[in-house]
Amino acid sequence: MGTVLPDAVASVVSAVRDTAPLVHCVTNVVVTNFTANMLLAAGAAPAMVTDPEEAPVMAGAAGSLLVNLGTVDADQAAGMRAAVDGATAAGVPWVLDPVAIGVLPLRTRIATELLARGPAVVRGNASEIQALAGGTGGRGVDSLDTPDDVRGTALDLARSSGAVIAVSGASDLITDGTRVVRVDAGTPLLTRVTGVGCSLGALVAACAAVTPDRLLAATAATAWLCAAADRTTSPAPGSFAVELVDRIFDIDPEAVGYGADLVDQSPAEGGPEPTRAGS
Amino acid sequence: MGTVLPDAVASVVSAVRDTAPLVHCVTNVVVTNFTANMLLAAGAAPAMVTDPEEAPVMAGAAGSLLVNLGTVDADQAAGMRAAVDGATAAGVPWVLDPVAIGVLPLRTRIATELLARGPAVVRGNASEIQALAGGTGGRGVDSLDTPDDVRGTALDLARSSGAVIAVSGASDLITDGTRVVRVDAGTPLLTRVTGVGCSLGALVAACAAVTPDRLLAATAATAWLCAAADRTTSPAPGSFAVELVDRIFDIDPEAVGYGADLVDQSPAEGGPEPTRAGS
Amino acid sequence: MGTVLPDAVASVVSAVRDTAPLVHCVTNVVVTNFTANMLLAAGAAPAMVTDPEEAPVMAGAAGSLLVNLGTVDADQAAGMRAAVDGATAAGVPWVLDPVAIGVLPLRTRIATELLARGPAVVRGNASEIQALAGGTGGRGVDSLDTPDDVRGTALDLARSSGAVIAVSGASDLITDGTRVVRVDAGTPLLTRVTGVGCSLGALVAACAAVTPDRLLAATAATAWLCAAADRTTSPAPGSFAVELVDRIFDIDPEAVGYGADLVDQSPAEGGPEPTRAGS
Repeated sequence: MGTVLPDAVASVVSAVRDTAPLVHCVTNVVVTNFTANMLLAAGAAPAMVTDPEEAPVMAGAAGSLLVNLGTVDADQAAGMRAAVDGATAAGVPWVLDPVAIGVLPLRTRIATELLARGPAVVRGNASEIQALAGGTGGRGVDSLDTPDDVRGTALDLARSSGAVIAVSGASDLITDGTRVVRVDAGTPLLTRVTGVGCSLGALVAACAAVTPDRLLAATAATAWLCAAADRTTSPAPGSFAVELVDRIFDIDPEAVGYGADLVDQSPAEGGPEPTRAGS
Repeated sequence: MGTVLPDAVASVVSAVRDTAPLVHCVTNVVVTNFTANMLLAAGAAPAMVTDPEEAPVMAGAAGSLLVNLGTVDADQAAGMRAAVDGATAAGVPWVLDPVAIGVLPLRTRIATELLARGPAVVRGNASEIQALAGGTGGRGVDSLDTPDDVRGTALDLARSSGAVIAVSGASDLITDGTRVVRVDAGTPLLTRVTGVGCSLGALVAACAAVTPDRLLAATAATAWLCAAADRTTSPAPGSFAVELVDRIFDIDPEAVGYGADLVDQSPAEGGPEPTRAGS
Repeated sequence: MGTVLPDAVASVVSAVRDTAPLVHCVTNVVVTNFTANMLLAAGAAPAMVTDPEEAPVMAGAAGSLLVNLGTVDADQAAGMRAAVDGATAAGVPWVLDPVAIGVLPLRTRIATELLARGPAVVRGNASEIQALAGGTGGRGVDSLDTPDDVRGTALDLARSSGAVIAVSGASDLITDGTRVVRVDAGTPLLTRVTGVGCSLGALVAACAAVTPDRLLAATAATAWLCAAADRTTSPAPGSFAVELVDRIFDIDPEAVGYGADLVDQSPAEGGPEPTRAGS
């Protein structure tokens, strides 16, 4: 257990750029293009393969896998299961993004099933994490709760599942059940562009391909997205989305580590005063 | 029967921004991302769910539903039917966008079937409206006719179907079978960006979620898109598409109502001189 | 057999803009939007129809067809076969883009099957062309070889298949088995935007709709993309992608012919000194 330092975050960003990990994404049809472009901007190599015969081959050859339930149907679910089979067999870390679970039945069942298969990281908003823990969800992709509202739930879910839980919101919370990191950054326009949360899941996967420390991977990806967003100047969402891709591409690794407002709150509640990294 | 006033249009725009209606879209794979971003820019909350088990749940919980036939296949058609079931059961208004019907057999059958299910609004180009009324269609998404060419057909179709018919073109025509509104605005670049017409269908759905006056909803959405397009300055389609999203986001409601060239031609041909709203 | 001249390339660009050929694309879900926008920017009319009942109708009515295996599954494969049926019956030229074949089993089988059906042009990176010729492929969409590495393979494949083979890379190589053209242009950012190679396949299809000279069609499309890319100024991939669409739209035909560095190396190795067209 240790403090997540800005320098460690910067190292992860550099490692993604230096090694161009292949990130296999089985994701939703709304965000495929944006996700692939965000990964390419980050320096990773996206591959999107869903066919059940091909998905395990690709997952097994990849540095990491993302499974995003945004537009899942029975056919794609078969591809997701096959991809997780391939990743598991090859020891490839994978990220679960349980988009809009809770109200919608198919994806809620699949998310529960996949959680038991051992994802390295689960990334969702507060409603989705609440639903994955057995609560009720929101009204789709919107989150009606904040990360702080589900802090206890996230810690419990991390402990019971063995996955790092990354809760997105105005302030992100990331925990492995013991350590807790907060990332306070980002801009309101992030909620006005579709697929930003989904691309964060993909960035988590990219980072998980270059470090075995999954809490660090999720923290680095979140800081990368937030620090890049903070460096944009566009006042409207169309140009903001374009500029966000540009900033993911050209931001300095040190600016990721020190630009996002990382707060390592480990150990969890009840422990000593949290250390504010980067201050 | 009344005049569609710019102030009423402005109120619809404000209501979308103030209430962020959840708009469920079952749409084509070419335009999912752009449609979602246009809805987010407008202030609405897009959700795209196609699985037949999930679609009715989402549609029933939404403020409105869009069914767009652009890349329909048998699987997606099942999801569309289920979504319409859910919307109908919950009294949720839904918009039908019969993309490229006429020549293509599956979608032409589905469009006819869905028309009988009572959409609040049908949005299409002149060829598509002609085909939906039983005529022959164009060569795909292109329109070989103009809204004026199908004015009589649109009025008849509105009366027989009970739906508001919105015909897109260089000059848009919107009718409920009695009232007729024209919107004269927009720029040639609108035809050089994929999914603009599809996103108009989504904006109609967003507006239909905040007013029971479906003619007003279709008029407001059309005026919103056209007035936003008129405020762009980009001379080429890549940057124009980005700027269009920006202008949907930041245009004043009054500029929508008074910026598009609305002409309320009600009552229909033969009646008194039309009133030019906004002059 | 003749030299591919810049003036001939310019004529193809003008013909696409003047005649707006309908290009039917059965392509992958990551790039549908970008491909459609690139085709619209070029002046062509994209149509994306995958349903097996509809695909042959659309292909038969189109000026050309693109089949791209990027996210193929069993359902889409049925649509691809049907589209090729329609194109073949109507004498419509079609382009095969064998994305990421080699390692992935379903697409490798389908690519082999489709190659035997007589595509006008095959466009791929060096790894994909190598795999199509019976070798082993890369790690997905990345190419581990260069066009020069597979020059002999491409010539042999063109002769045995009857298709023009267009190999993309830092320097593109296009051959019909006798003639060989090189296009040296482009920028490193082309590899940081998803779907650039896929949109090149679509541009090849657009050009093949307006000239029976398939080597010229592939050369014109490649030169168009490269010359447009050379005219961009964006230093980062988000804005570069937007600007690329703009430059495809507004570049002068002469600038395409003379702006890309075309080298007609015909006749093949062992023949007389190649002529540098455009110098």
